[in-house]
Order: sequence, then C-alpha cells, then structure tokens
Amino acid sequence: MTVLERLAALRALMQQYELTAYIVPGTDPHASEYMAPHWMEMSWISGFLGESGTAVITMDKALLWTDSRYYLQAEAELQGSTFELMRESDVDCPSITEWLNSQLSTLNSPLSIQIGVNPEMYSINGYRDMRDELAESGIQLVSKDLIQPIWTENRPPIPMNPLYTYSDQFAGASVPSKLARLREALREKRCDALVVAELDEIGWLLNIRGTDVDYTPCVVAYCVVEMQRCTLFINPHKVSATDADILHNQGVELQPYEAIYTYLPTLQAQKVLMDGNRVNEALYEAYMQVPDRKVLVVTPSPLQVMMSVKNEVQLDGLRAAMRRDAVALTRFFRWLETEALQSPQTEVTLANQLHAYRAMGQSFTDESFGTIAGWNANGAIVHYAAKPDSCAPIEGNGVLLLDSGGQYLDGTTDITRTVWVGDPSAIPAQLKHDFTLVLKGHIALAKARFPKGTRGNQLDVLAHQFMWAEGITYGHGTGHGVGHFMGCHEGPANIRTDNNPNPIRLGNVFSDEPGIYRAGKYGIRIENLVATRQAAATAHTTGETYFEFETLTLCFYDTRLIDRKMLTADEVAWINTYHAWVEKEITPLLATSEAAYLHTKCLPI
Amino acid sequence: MTVLERLAALRALMQQYELTAYIVPGTDPHASEYMAPHWMEMSWISGFLGESGTAVITMDKALLWTDSRYYLQAEAELQGSTFELMRESDVDCPSITEWLNSQLSTLNSPLSIQIGVNPEMYSINGYRDMRDELAESGIQLVSKDLIQPIWTENRPPIPMNPLYTYSDQFAGASVPSKLARLREALREKRCDALVVAELDEIGWLLNIRGTDVDYTPCVVAYCVVEMQRCTLFINPHKVSATDADILHNQGVELQPYEAIYTYLPTLQAQKVLMDGNRVNEALYEAYMQVPDRKVLVVTPSPLQVMMSVKNEVQLDGLRAAMRRDAVALTRFFRWLETEALQSPQTEVTLANQLHAYRAMGQSFTDESFGTIAGWNANGAIVHYAAKPDSCAPIEGNGVLLLDSGGQYLDGTTDITRTVWVGDPSAIPAQLKHDFTLVLKGHIALAKARFPKGTRGNQLDVLAHQFMWAEGITYGHGTGHGVGHFMGCHEGPANIRTDNNPNPIRLGNVFSDEPGIYRAGKYGIRIENLVATRQAAATAHTTGETYFEFETLTLCFYDTRLIDRKMLTADEVAWINTYHAWVEKEITPLLATSEAAYLHTKCLPI
Repeated sequence: MTVLERLAALRALMQQYELTAYIVPGTDPHASEYMAPHWMEMSWISGFLGESGTAVITMDKALLWTDSRYYLQAEAELQGSTFELMRESDVDCPSITEWLNSQLSTLNSPLSIQIGVNPEMYSINGYRDMRDELAESGIQLVSKDLIQPIWTENRPPIPMNPLYTYSDQFAGASVPSKLARLREALREKRCDALVVAELDEIGWLLNIRGTDVDYTPCVVAYCVVEMQRCTLFINPHKVSATDADILHNQGVELQPYEAIYTYLPTLQAQKVLMDGNRVNEALYEAYMQVPDRKVLVVTPSPLQVMMSVKNEVQLDGLRAAMRRDAVALTRFFRWLETEALQSPQTEVTLANQLHAYRAMGQSFTDESFGTIAGWNANGAIVHYAAKPDSCAPIEGNGVLLLDSGGQYLDGTTDITRTVWVGDPSAIPAQLKHDFTLVLKGHIALAKARFPKGTRGNQLDVLAHQFMWAEGITYGHGTGHGVGHFMGCHEGPANIRTDNNPNPIRLGNVFSDEPGIYRAGKYGIRIENLVATRQAAATAHTTGETYFEFETLTLCFYDTRLIDRKMLTADEVAWINTYHAWVEKEITPLLATSEAAYLHTKCLPI
Repeated sequence: MTVLERLAALRALMQQYELTAYIVPGTDPHASEYMAPHWMEMSWISGFLGESGTAVITMDKALLWTDSRYYLQAEAELQGSTFELMRESDVDCPSITEWLNSQLSTLNSPLSIQIGVNPEMYSINGYRDMRDELAESGIQLVSKDLIQPIWTENRPPIPMNPLYTYSDQFAGASVPSKLARLREALREKRCDALVVAELDEIGWLLNIRGTDVDYTPCVVAYCVVEMQRCTLFINPHKVSATDADILHNQGVELQPYEAIYTYLPTLQAQKVLMDGNRVNEALYEAYMQVPDRKVLVVTPSPLQVMMSVKNEVQLDGLRAAMRRDAVALTRFFRWLETEALQSPQTEVTLANQLHAYRAMGQSFTDESFGTIAGWNANGAIVHYAAKPDSCAPIEGNGVLLLDSGGQYLDGTTDITRTVWVGDPSAIPAQLKHDFTLVLKGHIALAKARFPKGTRGNQLDVLAHQFMWAEGITYGHGTGHGVGHFMGCHEGPANIRTDNNPNPIRLGNVFSDEPGIYRAGKYGIRIENLVATRQAAATAHTTGETYFEFETLTLCFYDTRLIDRKMLTADEVAWINTYHAWVEKEITPLLATSEAAYLHTKCLPI
C-alpha cells in the first residue's frame, strides 16, 4: 500500500464513522521513549520516519507536525504524499488544536464536529487537555482506532522477545518487598489498585527485563496491582516456564497482554490510582465503562517516586558499571588520540569504536541511547544523529562532542565529553572560554549542598550562572533522572528551569550536563551522572537534613580546553581532586600503556 | 463586655442559627497586611491582641490558633478567657480543619453539621479550600456574620480618614492610562469587569492614597472596573469635593463603601475577573447570587502584575527616596557609634531615633513597617517587635540587627543592616564567619544575570548556597516584592524557595535579604532593595533578553564583621564598588562631619 492508498482507506473509515478529522500521533500505548515498530502508526500513515511527529488527516487535507530537528527529513520523506509539513518549532505555527479549532469550529453550527483518535496512543492527561481545548470550539473527541483495521499488510507484530527475570543481587530489593511498599503507598492515597502501563515501571516493580525496544531493557506488558493480587498482562510466549514460576512465587499472576482490556471492567476496587501522564486513555476508558467507578489520576504515581530512589545495591552496581564504562572511554580516547586518525574516520566510525570498547566490558548489554558524536558544527545540533552516508569525516583540527552511555546489568551510564582533536596550539580562545564556562557550571552543580525538600529548578541556576552572566544559555535541561539498568531518562524529579514541583530525593540519580552551542562552529557539553546522598553535618549545622551529590562518572575532562584564569582556586581543586580519583579508581583496571595515557590526562592543572 | 460575655452572646446566636462551630480569623475584607481596629474580630472575641491568629468557638469549647511568635503573649492574654491555645507551629498541632474534622465529623450521622464564618474575612480561594477540607467529613460551611450583631459596644468605626489624590508626577502614569491598560488585559482574558478589594491595588490603580492603616498609605474602599465605567466604593466623607472632581475627570465614579454589595448583583457583565487570593468570598457570593453568572477566578490578577512593574518615574522617585533614606541611616549609625551610648539606650529608643532621622527627610510620611531592632539574642527572633516595657537595653559589646523602612511620597524603602556595637576587638570569629556567609549570598543574588522568564525560585539558591554548604539556612524568604509608596510587601513574584510560578518582570523591585539566626545569641540579616532591569548584551550573547538587578539601597555594610579571607576577589571588588558608589551619592547630602564618618565606613576592604 502506498501512502495515498493508506490515506484513502483511512478516509473511507472516517466517512463511515462520521469523523471530520483523524489524528495519528507518534506515540505508543506505554508512554515509551523508544518505540517498537508495531506502533509507528504516524510513520505508516504519512511515510515520515522521524522519531517525533503527529499526523492530522481531514477529508481533503493531510498535515504532519514535527519540530525543527526533522524539517529536512520530513520535507524529503513527505514528497508526493499530499502531506503538508507543519513546522512546529516556528513561532507562527499553530498547534494541532489551534489549527483544528480555527479550521473546523462549529460554534455557530447545529451539528457537532467529531475528531477521532486512538485512545491507546494518548496519556489520560494528554487526552483530557486535547478534549478540553477542542471543546472550546464545540469539537468533540471520539475514541476510535481506525489504523488497526487498515494496517493489515506487513504490520510488524507487537515485540515477542522473551522476558528475563532480574536478580535481586542487582535490583537490591525483592518483588514482594516492592509490592508491599507500593501497596502501603496506595493505602496512604486511599486507593486499593494501581494500573501500570509504562514499561520501565513494570520492569522495575517486577524485576523483569527484556529486549523489546532499543536501548531500554524493557518488556512489553501491562500490570495491575491490587491489595491481594498482582497481575502481569503479557504475551504468554514471552515467559518461560521457569520465569513464570519465579514470578508466581513472588506473587505475580500472568494473563495475556490484551486481556487487560477485559480485566479492567471486572476489577473489584474501591478506588484505582492511575498516573495521568503514563497510563493511556484506553485503559482509563476500559475501567470507567462501568458506572460509579472511582479513579484517582495523579502524576507522578508513587511507583515513579519509588523507582527513582536507588538503593545501596543499585548504587554500588552503578559505581561498578561506571568503572567499566570509564575503562572503555579511556581506551577510546587513547585510541582516538594515538591511532584512530592513521586511517579515515567519521562520526559513525568513532561511535562504533566506542560501542566496541564498551561491549568488551562485563555485563554490558547495549548502549543506553544512540551515541551523539558531533564533529565541529555538528556538535552544535543538540540532538544530532550521525548517519553513515551523511556523517562528517574527522579531519584536521576540531572539537568532538561525544554523548554516549551503556546499559550494564548493574547500572545505566550516560556521559558527555567534549575533546579537542588535532594540534592543541590551534585551540581558539573563544572555544576555551566557552568550555570553561560550561565546566564551571558543571562543577558548581556537582558541588551543590541543599536542604531536603529542594527541587531541581532551584539548583539549575548553579549550572547556568556563569554563562548567563555573559548572555549565553542552552536549549536543553541541565539534568535528567536516570534509571537503573532501565530508561536513561526517568522522572519525576529533574534539574531544569521548568517549575517541576518534585523534590530531589535521597538516591535519585541525575545527569549534570550544561552546554554551549555555537551554530555552524561547535558544541560543548560536559556531563557526569551524580547520585543524591545525605551530607555530613558540619560544625555550623542548625539541624535540618542536607543533601549533596556524589559524582559517579569516572572520566577525565580535556584540560587542554580549560582557560585556567577563569577558574577559582576551589574549582581548580575540585578538578584536580576529581582527576586524582579517576586515576586511582581506573588505573588498576588498565594495561600499563593505557594507565600511562590516563596519567597524562589526569595531571593536576 | 468581657470575653466570657462575648462568647455567651456568640453561642446564643450560634444556637439560633444551628451552627456547631464558628470561626473568627484575624483577617479583614481587603486581604490587608495591616488591619484597621474595626476588623479585629479575632482579638475582640478572644482577648488575644497578636497580629496573627484564628479563634474557633464551639458550644463547649473555645480555641485560638497562633504561631510560635505569639505563644507567650497568647498564654498571658487568654488567661481566664476559657480559650485554649493551639500552638500551630508545633508539628503535632492539628490544623483548624483537621481539628474540626476529627471533632465534629458527621460522616455516619444523618444530620449535616454546619460551621459558620464571616465570608468577608476569607479570600475566595481560602474559603474554597476550607469548604473542601471540611466536606471530607460531611461538614458544611455557612456564610454568616455573627460578630456584627454582638460587637455593638465600642466597636471602632471603619477608618474615616480622607483620601488624597496622588500626583502623576510621582506615579508616572495617569489613571486613564492605567484603566486603558487594565481593560486591555481584561479583554485578553475574555472578561469585561474586574472586582478589586485589596487597598494597595485600588490606591495604585486610581492614584489615591490615605492614612487608614499603619505603614501602608492606603484608603479603605472597593473598586469595580467595567469596560465603560470605573466605580470607587468609598465612604463619601473621605473624599473632598476637589478630589471627587479629579477622580470624576479621570473616569472614576463614586458610590458609598457598602454599596458594592448591592451593586454587584446588578452588574452587567459577560464575565467578571476576581483575584482568588485578594477578593473576599462575600463579594463573590454577592455577584453569584444571580443565576447564570460567570466569574473567572485567577491569581494573580492582571492588576497585581501591572502594579508590580515600576515605570521609570517610579524608579527615579525611589532612587531619590533611597538617597534621603541613606542620609537618615548614615546619621543614625554615626549617632549610635559616637553619641548614643553616652546615655541609656534600648532597642526602642534606637528605633525611635532612626524614625526621627527619617522624618527629617523630604516627603517622608511614615515608616513602611514597624522597625525591628534586635539586640544580641533578640536579633535571632525573626519577627521580633521590641516593646518599651520589655525591650533590651543596649549595653556592652554586641550585635544589632536593624530592619526598617520609610514611606516617602516618591518611594518605599526597606533595609536591614547588622552592625557591631562596642569594642571591635571583641567580635567573635563565629559571628564574622556567619556575617560573611550572609554577605556572600546577598552579593551573589545582587549580581545575578538571568534570561527573561526566570522565576525567583530559580535564583534563591544564589543567596542560600554558601550557608547551605555548611548546613545553615534561614526560615524566611530571600526577597519580597516592594510597592511604590504603597505596601512594603507585594506580589506576585518573589525570591523564595517556594514553587511560585510568576516570572521576574522588568521593573519589579525586590528585597535581597538572606540571614543567619543563632538562637539565644544573635541574628544577622543584610537587606538591600534591587530593581529588575534589562542587562546590556555582551560580546558572547546569543540573542535572548537578559535581566539583572540594579541595587537601589545606599548604605554601607559593617566591614568590621567581614572575614575577608572568605571572600573571592570578585566579591571584594563588588563591596568596594558599592561603598564607593554610596559615598559618592550620599556625601553631597551630608554635613562635613557626617561625610567624614561615612568616608571611614566606605573605605575599601
């Protein structure tokens, strides 16, 4: 089927159901960061293969909204599709609901206009927001999956890869203990059931992992936790008899994946908790189709909060994973500096080599996201993804921004280093200035000490302050939560300028990654992971509990890029202490020649 | 009437209206910071004269909630009243609604329990929150003023002081221009009327001032702004014929104060805007008693935002007021250091002397709040108010915390300085350490530069960071908004740890006042006012608009209290630049001997 044929088939169904428009978002039923091909309905209907976008189809128009990262790709891929590109990063681009309201308003018409969506693809909150915005123009939202009946040919199946159970030795907490804590949290909210749709949450709660999507070791399933029962809804072919036994012994019953939609209407509960941002609207509707049912929609759910708090076993695992990650990075940077450029290299060959070094490490399973290797001007594109046929060759002098991470059984890593490649005497003063501004912010956040209850938006300025003083900023967050052998990005707390109300909790792991991007020239980002721990009392302490960050990442900064006179004595001391620690921790894991290289990179400044 | 007789009279009315409890809060109908005696219903019913508290009366109990500032005073004043003191700062003290819910729950009773309140004394939001919390136990809130019928004897009248019109020369904007901007803001919110109850807002909008309450030059009134009409509800005896003419010529009509309650039911509007935190519930109910009426309850209202943005005339006025304030402060500190202690002094005599120096300044009308003069241990009591008969004598060596401000026709000031009194060689190292931590935070906030859209909660850490690093904090906000010849505390933005969503706007004036308090020893607070202005672009700027703070306050810090080795070179330079500026600005306004004193205080460190 061509895109034109798909559109014709969809419009025939829209006519049958009296829908004036149909919306196909680039999402899945599990609020996933990385989607399985089965759910790529937006790409299927439009032909646009970018990771982010939403298609809107009326009887005579087809539009695709996407952001500036994908403008060029979308223009190419939408050729001949009749889809019109809506450039949503442009200030004058209407939002989807604004466009629908202005095009289809029926406020002066006696007939109600109906727009269809697949409710599986919207979170409860996302669906409500859209419904309310459309209601302003008298437009009604209708839940109806029109893609399933027409995408019958060559649709990839829902992932069928087997799950595997994840040892308490890594998780640091048994499934029964997690279920007990979760049930206690539900009681506190006067609820007696929880619906879980996000795959990270299910994996964390039930100590299961899988390979169903890229980068995040999760397994496609739903879960419903009741006070006396916990049910995992999963394709039975994914669960071996052994794993089924293990799950059963931990108090987890199995039902087929699709059975959640018949289970929810029969669920016996006083009040069900659902995370408004992570449970899809179809599940909500399935439960609410029975009269007099009570749901508490909150975000984040207690499960999100529990998952974000890493225990000591998880943190010890992560510290060990960090050492292996650092060995790979040290080998990679040594290779880059001493051998790599004897043969032609590109952004992609560098990323592949780093992957190869990581893969030598014990318990490595995958990268934790697609490596961003940006050479010179490409480094200034924040979400750059080098492609083999279009990526930049590494030639001459320049700056390499390298953002990468690994999934290890004992932890998830995420690190960015920005390094100079070539003749160090050619490093421009402006580059050193920018690098040092970023490094100062990175250090200030790493050194932060703050009372319990502090939110990330209170600390963000520590990373921004030095560049803000010069009128420079960056268009991404300063720090995201990081899962444990799970999603590289997780909630609920983070370190951003947004007014996120979630406090930083003991055991939260965050990235610390300020940056400066000079369009057409280079990008600089410096990123470590840090864990939140209790700070020791000082002689002056007045009684409150204080937290601080423990730096977890173990890799030198490129000190050739530092403008030393911009640093305070405290900052110099911090860098030297960090480098001494890196050398001490990693040297025993290296060959002699590698250790000698590391030593030169960790010399005091 | 005694308190016991008042309680008996109230209970008789409660019985008549079938109310199980009655709540008397220490508030007024205008969300005022400083109340007129007429509205001190809580003090009248309980005998407790503190500024903050709420009385709850049932048929057999009387309780008074107040915070730890007032525990001693309340214990004394409630003697023999049958009132039980509820210490609301104690962690185990139930809130009023918690207590009512636990004592009076009727969830298992067929009869509904009703609790009465005077809706004039609650904001719309405050009333809604209480109603919703009580509804959890099946308790119903009833709007009914039971104090008015029984407080007939010696009740102070509603303030009758005349208003005066305030010149555009000070206000920098005419009433018609403000009304036009406000109406435009209402249109943007699809509203066509605004109800105004806060006296600061009325004074700002209509360029009127008065002397109805302490410290804030406001006049008791209500106001309703419609698209073609603006009505000031005010006792006609408060308005001279001349001022009535001026108001009339500016498009403002007059009606009696109480007439707002008959006006609102007749108001012809599509949708009325009310500030949920500043309009009282009685006004809301008066408007909503007619069916099918539409209200948009928001906070802050556009009026709050407009008022917080000072224009150049206001800022120039404030800069001039600051110079006169600085002359008074310089004279005061010289007197304190050279003459005062030749005769006995107390916290109160010092405050009086400072008031006298300020009163010599042109356009001074009043203090902007009650001076806090805290000697040694009293300085550690954040809201300390010295009383003539109990205040501390200034004797020996010690620390004086002095927080004070003036109302001048051209601006409102608010400044805190902490100074050493006595032999400088006796200054303890710990005191210097604490003082320098506070000063470092004060400077870091003053130097902040940040993109448009930044909120105060993002900047707060700059003031806290150095003391947090040592496990020290303070129990008050870092910065509050400051009105222009109006309330010393205003919204909507501020600089606190709270998640206040309001961004800092150009022209906003804030205090910058970190502190450290050592119970039983001393308090340190250092406070300047700053104005938000646009920052000049730098060589590195990438295009966004940046703001910075202009320091307005002109008074030296006590450099004897500085531990210089804790300061960075940038901080030392900032202090020296500040002191040079203070000396340059104020010297021309001083007598020679005063200038010589100032010179010694402004010497570079």
